[in-house]
Amino acid sequence: MTHRELMTRAIDLAKEAAAAGEVPVGAVIARNGELIAEGRNRREENQDALGHAEIEAIHNACEKLGTWRLNDCILYVTLEPCPMCSGAILNARLKRVVYGAYDLKAGSVDSVVNLFSYPYEHTPEIQAGFMEKECRELMTRFFSSLRGRSPTIE
Amino acid sequence: MTHRELMTRAIDLAKEAAAAGEVPVGAVIARNGELIAEGRNRREENQDALGHAEIEAIHNACEKLGTWRLNDCILYVTLEPCPMCSGAILNARLKRVVYGAYDLKAGSVDSVVNLFSYPYEHTPEIQAGFMEKECRELMTRFFSSLRGRSPTIE
Repeated sequence: MTHRELMTRAIDLAKEAAAAGEVPVGAVIARNGELIAEGRNRREENQDALGHAEIEAIHNACEKLGTWRLNDCILYVTLEPCPMCSGAILNARLKRVVYGAYDLKAGSVDSVVNLFSYPYEHTPEIQAGFMEKECRELMTRFFSSLRGRSPTIE
Repeated sequence: MTHRELMTRAIDLAKEAAAAGEVPVGAVIARNGELIAEGRNRREENQDALGHAEIEAIHNACEKLGTWRLNDCILYVTLEPCPMCSGAILNARLKRVVYGAYDLKAGSVDSVVNLFSYPYEHTPEIQAGFMEKECRELMTRFFSSLRGRSPTIE
């Protein structure tokens, strides 16, 4: 699968989350272009503070590959990872992170802090703003509908 | 239970982890002095990058209380939280974190970075170095035994 196809799958997962009343975030993990694992936000459904898309995807990838080391894997996620998920990316030794929309409130790759600029034992490659418009629109639509307004495109 | 009794339980969980061949880290969560949830490192056992003591304790606390908001809870952990666990503490809105030993390689409350000094939506109270000697000795003994040497007390 191409980068675009993988992020499109993450966007589909984010849409599933939105349909279930969750903040729309989706994530997939791939190795050599092959889809290995998926995740989506389930915080409200599971009432679990850990219920982020990236956490579910990393957990599923570790289970599928039988190892906590995901060195040769790439994570695609629709929203800039929060500090928990950025830390999970470090702990899983993910090779690369590709994300769509920036998260000015909690994003910990570029926005609030660049966690990967600190001297941890691992440093993933980052591609920020990939398919950003599509990913940002997911969030805009969701929060507009929460406020009971018609969705607006920024 | 007192702070000391709660941290002693976390130390017991860390010893369980060591006996199972894991880096010895244990954690408990309490509310009004009542033990709510426990966790210990299971990264190798489960081959899961997310298998840290704090993650298990937070997951169990959310499940027990039926909510992802742990605002009135305190986390006791034997080792300074890594970036993933520090982020999970933010996401769970934990009121306070009490930790024992410093982690110079990955600690993200004081050592590598102070994640809680950034403008996230929540800021937990921190008590660092509580029962530090006992907590540090757990780590020293474990890594000494891994190197095949007699344990030394620093």
